[in-house]
This record gives sequence, C-alpha cells and structure tokens, in this order.
Amino acid sequence: MRIEILCTGDEVLTGKIVNSNFSYISQKLEDFGLTVVWGTTVGDDREKLLEAFRLAAGRADAVIVNGGLGPTVDDLSQEMAARAAGVELVLSEEWLEKMESYFQRRSRIMPPNNRKQAMLPSTAEILDNPVGTACGFALDIGGARFFFTPGVPRELRRMLEEQIIPRLLARSGIQAVIHLKRFHSYGIGESRADTLLAGIEELVPDGAMKLGFRAHYPQLETKITIRGTDMDDVLRKLEPVTAEVRARLGNFIVSEDDRTLEGEVLGGLVAAGGTLALAETFTGGQVAARFSPQPGAERVFVRGVAARSVAGVAAAVGLAGEPDGVEIARALAAASGASHAMAVLVDLDEGSDRIDLGGTIRIAIVAGDRVETREARVLGGREWVRLGATEMGLDCLRRFLLGLPVAERIDFEKV
Amino acid sequence: MRIEILCTGDEVLTGKIVNSNFSYISQKLEDFGLTVVWGTTVGDDREKLLEAFRLAAGRADAVIVNGGLGPTVDDLSQEMAARAAGVELVLSEEWLEKMESYFQRRSRIMPPNNRKQAMLPSTAEILDNPVGTACGFALDIGGARFFFTPGVPRELRRMLEEQIIPRLLARSGIQAVIHLKRFHSYGIGESRADTLLAGIEELVPDGAMKLGFRAHYPQLETKITIRGTDMDDVLRKLEPVTAEVRARLGNFIVSEDDRTLEGEVLGGLVAAGGTLALAETFTGGQVAARFSPQPGAERVFVRGVAARSVAGVAAAVGLAGEPDGVEIARALAAASGASHAMAVLVDLDEGSDRIDLGGTIRIAIVAGDRVETREARVLGGREWVRLGATEMGLDCLRRFLLGLPVAERIDFEKV
Repeated sequence: MRIEILCTGDEVLTGKIVNSNFSYISQKLEDFGLTVVWGTTVGDDREKLLEAFRLAAGRADAVIVNGGLGPTVDDLSQEMAARAAGVELVLSEEWLEKMESYFQRRSRIMPPNNRKQAMLPSTAEILDNPVGTACGFALDIGGARFFFTPGVPRELRRMLEEQIIPRLLARSGIQAVIHLKRFHSYGIGESRADTLLAGIEELVPDGAMKLGFRAHYPQLETKITIRGTDMDDVLRKLEPVTAEVRARLGNFIVSEDDRTLEGEVLGGLVAAGGTLALAETFTGGQVAARFSPQPGAERVFVRGVAARSVAGVAAAVGLAGEPDGVEIARALAAASGASHAMAVLVDLDEGSDRIDLGGTIRIAIVAGDRVETREARVLGGREWVRLGATEMGLDCLRRFLLGLPVAERIDFEKV
Repeated sequence: MRIEILCTGDEVLTGKIVNSNFSYISQKLEDFGLTVVWGTTVGDDREKLLEAFRLAAGRADAVIVNGGLGPTVDDLSQEMAARAAGVELVLSEEWLEKMESYFQRRSRIMPPNNRKQAMLPSTAEILDNPVGTACGFALDIGGARFFFTPGVPRELRRMLEEQIIPRLLARSGIQAVIHLKRFHSYGIGESRADTLLAGIEELVPDGAMKLGFRAHYPQLETKITIRGTDMDDVLRKLEPVTAEVRARLGNFIVSEDDRTLEGEVLGGLVAAGGTLALAETFTGGQVAARFSPQPGAERVFVRGVAARSVAGVAAAVGLAGEPDGVEIARALAAASGASHAMAVLVDLDEGSDRIDLGGTIRIAIVAGDRVETREARVLGGREWVRLGATEMGLDCLRRFLLGLPVAERIDFEKV
C-alpha cells in the first residue's frame, strides 16, 4: 500500500514550527509495517490544497492529511476535502452534539465559530477525537482513501493509533502480525548499541526481524520489529531476541515498551514499601517534576527541595554551611520522614553557555544504613548538563532499588 | 517567485529524524521576504526522485533540494539531477582538488568513495561548501532553477546564507519585506481570541496583514504577519495593529515575540531587586522547573519546596497542621529569606483520570506586607489540571509583579 502524508498549515510551511507530526506519523506507521512513500507540505491556501489533494489521490492508496480542522477562517480542510471529492459540506448533528457536551462538561458556552468544526463532506466517515473538538474524518478522493487529522499532537496521536492504523491494516490486506518491542536505555550511544547488537537479526529466520534505533538524549530507544503469521508465532520468535538484547545491553536498559525510567523507580519504591524525598541544585525541581506527576506517586513522594546552591539546599533541610550530598540526603530523610532520600548536586562550569561547557554531578542516595554515591562529569552546554543530571539521578535511584551497581561508567561522561 | 523545498532521504521520510532542515530553510527564506509555497519529501529512490524533480520543475521558479550529496550508494542527488536535466555526469576537477586538500589539511587520506562527490551534472554551477566534502550545485531543470544542498545542518546553513539566498534575491527582484509579530496569551481560547480580534486586518490596507493563531495549551499564540516595501514601511503598518491587539487582549497577553511568561516573571523580580521561593503540591516541582532553568534565575531562585500534601509542604517550611496558602508563603519567605514567596496548592478530585476530572487551584503570593490570593477550579484530567496550575501560578506572579489584577477570570476555569 502506497501511503502519502500531506501536512497543511502556514505555520508548518513557513517553518514557524518544526513539523514533528510528520515524523511521528511516519514512524508510527513504520512500526506497524506500513510504509510512507511521499510527503507533501502546503499552506492554508485553497488552490494549493486542491492541487495537493489531486496529486496525492493520483499516486497513493491512502493519504493522511494533518491540520486545518480548527474553528478559524484559515482552517480549510473540510471545505477543500468536499470540493476535491465533489460533494457538499453538511452539518453533522452527531459531532455538533459531541462538541456541545464537550463544552458543557467544562462549564463553558460553545463559541459560535466552533460550529464550523461540525461541517463535514457528505460522504465523510467520522474518526472520533475523544480529547478535542476537531472532528477527524475519512473519505474517498479519486482512488485513494483520505484520513483527515487534527494538528494538535495529542489529538493526532489518539486518532492515529485508535482510528487510522486499524483501518490501514485492514485495507492493506497483510495477514501478517507485526509486533514492536522497545528497550529504553540510558548511558550508551547509538553507535555503541549498534555494535553491541551486531548480528542479532540472525536469531530470527527469513528476515522477519528488523532492528532500529531512535536517539533522544539522554535516552536511546532500541526497536525490534518482528513479523509473524500470528501473535503466537511473533512471541515465539521474539523470546530469544529479548533475552539476547537484555544480556547485551545489560544494566543500561532502564525500561521496556511503554514503561519509563521514572515508572521503574516508582515501582521499586512501592515494592519496597518506601517513600521518597529529593534535594536538587541546578536541576531546579526537574528531578521531582519527572517523578511526581505519575499516578500513585502522591503516596510515595514526600518532599522535594530545590535551591540555587548547596548552601541553599542545606538551609532548606536544616543544615548550616556546605555539607556533602550524603549529609544532605540524611538530613532530608530525617526531616521529611521519607525512607529514601536522594541529593542531586551539580557544579556547573563558569562562563557563558557553549558546546563544551560542563558540569560535575554528585549524587547521594540514603536509605536507613545504606548509602550509595556517584560522581560524573558531563560536557555539552547548560541544557545538556541539566538533562543529563536529571536522568542520572533517576537512573542511580533505579539501580539502587534494583540492587545494581550505582556507579557504572556511561558513554556520556568524561573520564 | 514560487519556491519549493524538496527534502530527500529515507531517514527523513520514515521519521527517524525530525525534519528540522525544512523549517530552517523556510524560516530563513521568510526572513528575507522569500515565500515557500510547496514542500515535498521523498526517500532515496530513483523513480520517486525523478518524479519529484519533474513536478517541482513544473510548478516552481526555484527549488531547494536538501540531502543526497554524500559519498554512499544511497546518495542519489547528482545522478538524478543529471538525468532530470538530460545532461551527463562529469568529474569536477575543481571539487576533487578541494576535497583532496580538505582531507590533507586533516592529515587523512581521502577514501575512494568520496570521489563520487565530485561527479556533477555537466551544466552545474558549483555552490561552495567551506565546512564539508559535499559539493553544492545549481542547475536548470525545465523552467526552474534547482539548488542542491547537503543534509548536514551546519553545511546547509552556510550554503543557504552565503550562496543561495543572494542568488534567490537577485532572481526575485522583489523589494518586499515581511515581518512576523507574535503575542503569547494565557486565559483565552483560540475561538474567543478570534472573536476579540475580528476585523483587525482592516487596520492595514491592501491585504498586507495576515492574522493567525497557534494554540498550545495553556498558552495561545497570536501571529500577525505584515508585508511592506521596507522595514520602515512594515513598522509603520504594524504600530496601530500592535496597539489594538494589546488593547483587545489586555492583561491576558503574558509576553511578546521571543519572550516567555517565565522570562517576564524573572524580569519583574530582577527589576524589583527581589528573590523568589516557591511551594507546590500536586505540580510537584513543575513551577520551579519552569522558572529555574533560565539564565540569570540562579541569582533569584532561592528555594523550591514540593510535597504530596499541604501538610507535607507545611512541614517543609516548619509549620504544623494544615495552614492556608498565605501562611505557607509567609513561613517560606521567612525560612528562605526570599523577598517574594508563592504557594501553588492543588486539591485534585478523587477517582481515576478522566476528561472531566478537575482540581481546585489555590495560589497565594506574599512580598513583605503585600498579599494576593487566587482560587480557581479547572477541569480536563490530571495533566490538564497540572499544566493549568503551573501556568496560573506563573501568570499570577507576573500580574502581581506588574500590578495587574491577580484574580481575573479566565476561559479555562469553571465558575
């Protein structure tokens, strides 16, 4: 099946926003064995939209259109879809009611211009949007099936996964089952992971396995796609691969699939019947902000303290002077009553931000009599050091809770 | 002049990398009054490249092709450019010498496959690349001038600015300047902003102004694009529009252009010679994490405290029981020595996450004898409440520092 992605909107065309929706859609489809062969970007312009719809209809079997479903005058997708398909725009009572109840639940009156979002081409099949007022829809233009999606990322994501991918898989006629297994690691770069996993495809016969990576500092995602006749076949093929990836990437794997590093830390604390307190400098609350939003964290996260300096954090836990991380963590645990306390303290280099600006990260974790510390130097500018310190803090806590070595050297630190 | 950007490469098409080159090129051209009207993305595929070149040659006056100039077998740009133009590929002695000296200066031997980078269509005009081995070039295909650029961002940037933009400006002959003015607001939805600003385009004659919005909850961006003969003309046209937008959106505008809400708060504190301490429940450090990373915040941000409950925050500032926000802010200011202290306390509804789950946000700000409070109820699920509380806290602080009403009703709250 030939799939085209058609992104609309002046913001995207003029580069005011980076088009991350395109890469999200394309990658998500790849994960399901669906391949995008063409990408088009046009602005909020009737003539260009019509031309783009016509071209896509002529060369693709399925077209995913992103953007242009909002309530304002520059949102043209429904109008141009109707014109390209040669049908009328009609009011969808179904969607109008949905929108009205959406506003009602929020105790707001629906502004009159939102009514425009319920005007759909007469042949449109509604694609539900449970998290917004933009109505997704599908219809035929020429020989291709067009799927219209909202530009708001969280609305697009829900619609793509729940509404569009199942329809594309059904249309593609592929009987095969495709499964994506993901490993999230922290501490190894893409090229080292590639080397460590060399030849792993040979564990699965007939080229039914594909290995890929996606680096988003500080984490690396390793993606294994397995194709099989049914889910049993897939799981049978996947088993030795999973075991081998775990063995080769070892302690650097922080989580798998939809699980997260912070989720593993929360899970470890819950399993231990523990509670957590955090002290930070420079990261300024980011370690706490990663951990605390998780459902269930409210029963575990007792206290977070952030300050601009070690002396500031010390004062906040009732100490004077410049104590070390272990002393701070101990005082924090005592003051807050938490079973586990961690201090993440960063000494940032002096001077203006630059690519080789570095920081020294000092981590201390205390739980009763057990104490672990970690020190590392990271280069790469202010934001790089901040992201690295937040990740390293959470990873050290994960290792502490799982009984793994806390001070294992990573690729991103300077010896 | 009609300009098209044509991005090539499997990594971009499959979404493995986000296509930030596209937005870079497009935005840079806009800055010079050059408008991109079409974007195309195809993979490393001969047939698709040829088709994309043919289509672009038919609808554009100038085409910027990005990627495919490397030394490996999947780099196809020169070969397909020659085929599309109907000319031969010939070895450029000039570029070969440049590459050899490039390697020599780095004390390396040029690998044999780099020779491929000096094979150019016979009609090509070389576009210099002072920072890499990929040879940029320009040539005519059909009625359009094609500019071939490297995929490596820093090589692309140099070539675009030094080689391509001057050529495009010379060809365009247009004297027009385009300017983008942005307003960031918090508290009004896109539909209401659209209504509030109805008819504002009429302030500028001849359709030289365009109004657009970009919603990214909790903020809304209002964008005014003005076209003029030169920068003086643009600024003259912009002045009444800016005054009118400020008057109509009023206190809801939190910042303009590249400035941010947290930046305005920092600026306000610096202007007042003040320092800041923060106490949070439920947002769990996110207010601090928004404020503290800013350059210069380290001189202002004295202490942040987060806990799962009011009692937990109270304990962290030395109070017992369940004090109110003002008492907490007062105790925090006293304990930390900060001139300004804010408490952001959230009572989240019971039960599992759902779209109509809500929270009651209580904000208290204290600075010496001055005290302001704000209470609001927001619905929309855990994340929505969390984002809303973080934004409302920062916005109340901005209003407090600017002497604006702190308790002004917003669209996102339930009455």
